[in-house]
This record gives sequence, structure tokens and C-alpha cells, in this order.
Amino acid sequence: SSSTTPITATLFPGDGIGPEIAESVKQVFKAAEVPIEWEEHYVGTEIDPRTQSFLTWESLESVRRNKVGLKGPMATPIGKGHRSLNLTLRKELNLYANVRPCNSLPGYKTRYDDVNLITIRENTEGEYSGLEHQVVRGVVESLKIITRQASLRVAEYAFHYAKTHGRERVSAIHKANIMQKTDGLFLKCCREVAEKYPEITYEEVVIDNCCMMLVKNPALFDVLVMPNLYGDIISDLCAGLIGGLGLTPSCNIGEGGIALAEAVHGSAPDIAGKNLANPTALLLSAVTMLRHLELNDKADMIQDAILNTIAEGRYRTADLGGSSSTTDFTRAICDHL
Amino acid sequence: SSSTTPITATLFPGDGIGPEIAESVKQVFKAAEVPIEWEEHYVGTEIDPRTQSFLTWESLESVRRNKVGLKGPMATPIGKGHRSLNLTLRKELNLYANVRPCNSLPGYKTRYDDVNLITIRENTEGEYSGLEHQVVRGVVESLKIITRQASLRVAEYAFHYAKTHGRERVSAIHKANIMQKTDGLFLKCCREVAEKYPEITYEEVVIDNCCMMLVKNPALFDVLVMPNLYGDIISDLCAGLIGGLGLTPSCNIGEGGIALAEAVHGSAPDIAGKNLANPTALLLSAVTMLRHLELNDKADMIQDAILNTIAEGRYRTADLGGSSSTTDFTRAICDHL
Ligand SMILES: CC(C)[C@H](C(=O)O)[C@@H](O)C(=O)O
Ligand SMILES: CC(C)[C@H](C(=O)O)[C@@H](O)C(=O)O
Repeated sequence: SSSTTPITATLFPGDGIGPEIAESVKQVFKAAEVPIEWEEHYVGTEIDPRTQSFLTWESLESVRRNKVGLKGPMATPIGKGHRSLNLTLRKELNLYANVRPCNSLPGYKTRYDDVNLITIRENTEGEYSGLEHQVVRGVVESLKIITRQASLRVAEYAFHYAKTHGRERVSAIHKANIMQKTDGLFLKCCREVAEKYPEITYEEVVIDNCCMMLVKNPALFDVLVMPNLYGDIISDLCAGLIGGLGLTPSCNIGEGGIALAEAVHGSAPDIAGKNLANPTALLLSAVTMLRHLELNDKADMIQDAILNTIAEGRYRTADLGGSSSTTDFTRAICDHL
Repeated sequence: SSSTTPITATLFPGDGIGPEIAESVKQVFKAAEVPIEWEEHYVGTEIDPRTQSFLTWESLESVRRNKVGLKGPMATPIGKGHRSLNLTLRKELNLYANVRPCNSLPGYKTRYDDVNLITIRENTEGEYSGLEHQVVRGVVESLKIITRQASLRVAEYAFHYAKTHGRERVSAIHKANIMQKTDGLFLKCCREVAEKYPEITYEEVVIDNCCMMLVKNPALFDVLVMPNLYGDIISDLCAGLIGGLGLTPSCNIGEGGIALAEAVHGSAPDIAGKNLANPTALLLSAVTMLRHLELNDKADMIQDAILNTIAEGRYRTADLGGSSSTTDFTRAICDHL
């Protein structure tokens, strides 16, 4: 059975609180007897010319080889002449879709108790092209690039995800009333893919209106698919609805079937090394990785243990209003397995 | 005194429910003895070559002459070869700042009861340049343009607004970690202006983080200033926090001291002519126009009457959960003056 041959997965513990929350994942996975062996890679201390960033070539090769990985927060070192670590990963591994399930946590109260949606963000182009220049002094421009290839690819991923996850509706988010050509092309691609999925309802929602609807009634949405910047904005907005980035999983899908799950919160240097960090986002991200590997029993088991621990409320880290350490919270999750 | 010589203001009742809600404003202004004479202009039925849109040249001349106006919703007629009415107004009148006060309405319950902020949106450039093209088949690009001139102008407006309205903080919203040149220039201009206002706290917030903070705790913000698209998104998000576009005023500031207040909601053709529309957004917009004219007593009086009518709850239109007609709601406001 699949549980006898372990799967090798790359692990980037990352910076700041990264190593502590990565340790939490390792412990929970061990307790749950998940058949995964971690191959750990740290961010380098100097620029690797092959990646033009502090990420080592070996670490990227590891993800390419294993096709599956988990990443903690990485603070891009300050200075010029190198690329952001997150953007390097997206580019080098062609991580074309960023998938973020966003669900209200039972027992953790926010202003919303009915959030159950998924944002799927195009992750490689759009406003993130990096192409900018000064036209004349005092006049600068940035290029937003939308391609048919990347739009079809992310739309296809979104509809396939909806279909295979029992979702009913895909909403394409856009501003095609203003950016008729770029967002227009994105919508055209979504429509083409939608035709292949007649069982999924397809709609188009203008981004400003989408944000208004989300804060009024997030239950109106199911799966949302959108260009890069809108995805950046809306996925954080949605995280806010359920309590913040410390609670939301994220998984990046790359070409050739790569899945790189990640906590999208910061590295919180102020509390690093103090056994105070909340590992929930990284744990839930690790769960999305398990689902990608179709280890659904383990995924369900771990997810239930996390949610039950939070719902019970006895062990919560400080950001959730409790006073537990990272290790106590982790132990509580293991006890709930 | 100023109440003996009436001020002439342009009125665009607009389409759909526009004429009904404009009538409501006229009645309330009359009952409050506001010294304003309206000069009404309707959207034309054919394209005026001088404006390249259905807006007539005369109507634009009216705003330029009066320097103050109020605009109901305008549905841009479908078809090619002409410009959107809203964009034409912004361009032709150089409406460089869109100002939207956003306050929780006492007595009208949403998930938030502590919203008290102002969004100030650059309204002429950025992602709204209209410059787009196909590079090759399947690859399109849009240009985002940021200029020093427009950025300084809107930043200056925001700080001046903060200072003259007893506000303490201005937050510049950006994505300069990705769009270093364009949003970077915007921030540079904001910083320059901030130095002239040492009594106002200045901060910079990345747009994704801003949206997360807004839905978690909108009381964190005071005055927000930002490039065009972010303003479009965030102003609608904020409107959602307090109940939607039917409740939020908007005022556009143009060169030469022009102020064009407007309801930013749609023309609601489905309920047009049925005496069901909620005139609140247009009324509150008219109040911002009065403040611009420094008719603060009249502004306070009318604003209090609107808010008290809604808070009391006996007369509310259907969108607010009541069953009042537009005319009954308007009469109730007049009775509260
Ligand atoms: C850190 C930043 C470059 C990044 C982005 O804008 O994509 C972050 O906000 C995210 O969502 O992962
Ligand atoms: C109708 C549309 C062009 C407009 C915009 O995007 O600016 C609207 O959303 C607004 O905020 O006034």
C-alpha cells in the first residue's frame, strides 16, 4: 500500500517563526503516521547565480524532483540585485495557480460564520510582470500582461478543482469594463473553459462589486478565479473574514503537477524563537498538500484534529486570544488525532 | 448673506431611478431652504462629437460654469464608438480626486458598527489610462500610468482634507513591493506632501494587507489615499462594510475648484419609475456638495434628518428592509428637518 513506500516531500522551514511551525508540522505528521519523508532546504546566505536570489538551485531541484513541497514564511533579505524569494519560486517552478481554501473555523468567532470559498489566483503574470519604466521624468508606467495560455491554464485548474471538489459555481473576477483587452482576454478564456463544464455554474463579477459582496455576504461565493493582483487582494480580504493569514492555507500548483503548499503569513521576527507562533496556517497548508497527494484519510484526520483543538479552545496561541506555546498547541493537536 | 443670492448648481438626474432620487434631493433642499437653484441636464440621446459620448457639451459647460454639481446614476448606453459617461465626466472635467466618506449609519445594523473613514481615490490615471494593445495573438497588455503631477495633486488634496476635517492620519495604499516604479512614485509623492503636514500621521499600507485589516477592524483607518484602481476596489469594500453603495456619498473634486457629487450605485432599471428607490446615497452626496460650498449648517441639518429617519426605522425603503416608498421616506426626512 501507499503507506509502505514513503513519499519524499521538500520542506522549506523558512525564516523567523518558520522553523518552529515547520517542527509542529513534522510532529503532527509523525503522530498521524503520514508516509512522508521530508527533504529540508534552507534559504541560502548568498545569492545563487542560477536563481538570481538567495534560494539555492538545489532547493528548486528538490521541488522539481519531488513534485511536492511545503514552505514556511521567507523574509526576502533587504538589498538590491536579487529577486524576491516568493517571486523566484513562482517563476522558476512555474507555479501558475495559487489556491486558497477559506473556511470559517468552528469555535473561532469573527464577524462572519459562514465563509466557505476558494480563491484561485493566476500566479505568474498580470500586474506582476516586473515590466516598468519611466517614460519621461515624473511619468512612469507598469505593464500588465495577460496571455491566453496562462488564463486558460488557471481557468482549467479552477473548473477542474470545482468539479473534483463538489463545488457548484465558479466566479471569474475582473475589471473588463475598464481593462477591456487584458481582463477581456482573461474572461474570454474562462468562458471557453466554462463551456466544457456545463455542470458548473459560471458567472463574472467585477472586482469592486465582488469586494462589496464579499464583506456583505461571503456565502454568495463558491470558487473564485482571477488574474494575479486581484487574487492577491481578494485572497487576503477573504483571510480577514475568518481571522487572518495565520489561519488560512495556501497551495501553489505548478507545471508538471508540482504542488508547493505554503503559509502566506509573515516570518514574525519579533516572536521568532520564543515558542509563541501559531502553526495553524502551515498545518492547514500541509493538509492541502496531503489532499493533492490523495492522502485524504490522513488529510481529514489532521484537519479535524486542528479544527477540534481550536474549537475546544483550551489550547490556543496568543494571536487567537490564548496563552499556549507552539509546542503545547501542537501536542494538543496530536492528542486529538 | 449667502442665503439671499442663490447658488446655481448643475443637476444630472441620470437614468433609471435617477430622476426619482433627484426629485427627493430637490424636495429636501427646498424644505431645508437651501439657497441653491438647480440647472438640470439630461444625458443626450446621441453622441455629441465634442465629448465623444452621450453627454452633451452644454452639460459639461454647465458644471464648468457653476463649479458645483450633483449627479445621479448614469447607465452608459450599450454600443461601440463612444466613451463611458462616468469616464467622460472624469476626463473632461479633470475630476482628479474621488472622495468617499464612509460611516456606519446609527440604527442600521451591519456586521460593523465602528466605520468612520474616508477614501480618497486618484481618479484620472493609473490602470484607467485606456492604453491597451495586443502584443501578439494571445498576449495583451494594459498600461498603468502614474505621474508625479496627479499623485502630488491627490496627495495634497488628501492631507488638506485631513487637516481641515479634524482627521489625524493618512494611509497611502499601494503595491510598491511589486510595482516599484509606478506605486513607488505614488508613495514618493505622498511622502513629500506628508512632510508639509507634520501634525498628520502618515503611514503606508500594502493593498492586500489593507483589505485584510479593513474587514478585521476598520477602526484602524482614518483617511486613505490611493491610485485609481485600488480606490475603486477599496471604496466599494468600505461601502459594503456599512451596507452598500445605496448608503454612501461620493464627491469628485476637479481642477479649478469643481465639485461634482454623485451617487455611485447603479440606475436600477428594474425598479425605475416605481417609487421604490432609496435616495440616501444621492442625498448624502448632496450633503458633501453643501460642505464643499461651506453651507455647513444646511449640511448638518439635512444629514441629521437623513440619519435620524433611518435610525428611527419607521420609514425605510425596501433595500433597507422597510416598505416605504421613495416619496414617503423623503417626506419623513423633511419632517425631521
Ligand atoms: C510578498 C508579496 C510579493 C506577495 C504577493 O504580492 O504576491 C504576497 O502578498 C502574497 O500574496 O503571497
Ligand atoms: C462604472 C465604472 C467605470 C466605475 C469605475 O470603475 O470607476 C465605478 O466602478 C466607480 O467606482 O465609479
